[in-house]
Amino acid sequence: MRREITGFSNPLVKRVRSLREKKHRKREGLYLAEGLRILTEARECGFLPETLFHAGEENDLHPLARQLVEAVDTAGGEVIATNADILSKISGKDNPQTLVGVYPDRLTPLQELDRSESDIWIVAQSLRDPGNLGTILRTGDAVGAGGLILVDDCVDPFSVESVRASMGALFTQKIAHCRWEEFVNWLRVGEGVLIGTSLNTDQDYQQPVYKAPAFLLVGNEAQGLPEAYEQECDLLVKIPMMGKADSLNAAVATAVMAYEIRNQFRSRT
Amino acid sequence: MRREITGFSNPLVKRVRSLREKKHRKREGLYLAEGLRILTEARECGFLPETLFHAGEENDLHPLARQLVEAVDTAGGEVIATNADILSKISGKDNPQTLVGVYPDRLTPLQELDRSESDIWIVAQSLRDPGNLGTILRTGDAVGAGGLILVDDCVDPFSVESVRASMGALFTQKIAHCRWEEFVNWLRVGEGVLIGTSLNTDQDYQQPVYKAPAFLLVGNEAQGLPEAYEQECDLLVKIPMMGKADSLNAAVATAVMAYEIRNQFRSRT
Repeated sequence: MRREITGFSNPLVKRVRSLREKKHRKREGLYLAEGLRILTEARECGFLPETLFHAGEENDLHPLARQLVEAVDTAGGEVIATNADILSKISGKDNPQTLVGVYPDRLTPLQELDRSESDIWIVAQSLRDPGNLGTILRTGDAVGAGGLILVDDCVDPFSVESVRASMGALFTQKIAHCRWEEFVNWLRVGEGVLIGTSLNTDQDYQQPVYKAPAFLLVGNEAQGLPEAYEQECDLLVKIPMMGKADSLNAAVATAVMAYEIRNQFRSRT
Repeated sequence: MRREITGFSNPLVKRVRSLREKKHRKREGLYLAEGLRILTEARECGFLPETLFHAGEENDLHPLARQLVEAVDTAGGEVIATNADILSKISGKDNPQTLVGVYPDRLTPLQELDRSESDIWIVAQSLRDPGNLGTILRTGDAVGAGGLILVDDCVDPFSVESVRASMGALFTQKIAHCRWEEFVNWLRVGEGVLIGTSLNTDQDYQQPVYKAPAFLLVGNEAQGLPEAYEQECDLLVKIPMMGKADSLNAAVATAVMAYEIRNQFRSRT
């Protein structure tokens, strides 16, 4: 269905705008993604928005945006023509993208994750920064990970900042969320090597021979991994640091580790 | 000199607060850094703030913060006792750090960079995101890079977000800023291999044998490197991507490359 909205006080505009807040996302089971690149990525992964907003005339849209409009309409979704001011209100940005999609959130229950789908999985514990979470999803996509398992209290993967930082990888990666105990119980009934990075070891991250499926465990940005979590790891490794500040951004450390694991796997095939 | 400020309309508070904006930083030649960790890192690298603000009584401060107060006072700087509300006003954060320092900015003229000081240098072209810039500085510190050369129009390395993301690495890394032509002219009168990452090559980033000093060239987040810049590179390499989104965050790609170069260097010694 196609319609036009030009009024700021339209209830749907207000409702969609409210999805920038976590409590409304939770209540509605919906989240926002913006921009032609990310929405096209989503479509290629088989995900269409329930509601699609676009600025201006349909005929003036990019060909890929017009394909998206057609696909949403055909699938029974709602396509709403509006203007840049309203998209700005929805997205909270002065220069909004010309497309905003509303998607049903898509956490995968841990029990439904099929670990045989990939040889690398990323596990993040108490991650606080939405930019880091999105960047880790993007890295997960690049290294061919199966998905991201969020452990304990993590930032919402469906926040606007996280979706933006993921650059569409949110749609290529499975995402699960659970407590540590649940994760460990699930992990230990199947194959899998749990690999943690830590400053409390002398083992260089290039030293071990990594085996699949590798579960790469990343700790909180400020605290790192709790001691009990490190003890659960099958391998604890350290990324060497030559500098004075002696620390890496959490998403950067994840990428350096994930590429080491991927590089070992691809050198063996 | 030590004094106390409790008034919101104090001219110094206004002036320091204005340093959150680039035009005021440029005019004053000053920038802000916040928090015990970053300010201590700065002190260990030999940098003291001209002016140091702390919240509350000096006797209630962390021992490292008290050492910092002493050092600033001894060096002839100004130490200002104030309160959390004023620090919040200065830093623009609801929960401000208890320390804010005002530092003279410290770009190194390109001609004064001594390339023999390190075997890895990072060069970033038209970087737009302050978080990426700070994260690249932090990675530079970790891999033992000598510094960061900013080429063309980059985001200000002395912005509050960049300083924060660098986690103190801003003080361990030399930072230069120049046009592309100046950089190339400077590079080519000495030793140095210019290494660019690109999607326009089939050469895997683990394939070449990297030589020192390695200059790792990183392009703009959205556009990557201009074609002419790629042509100037001695080596063009590609980080393999197995996913669908087919992209990495700029700071992540920099780290994956920088660790490959560092790993090659350390395996040869």
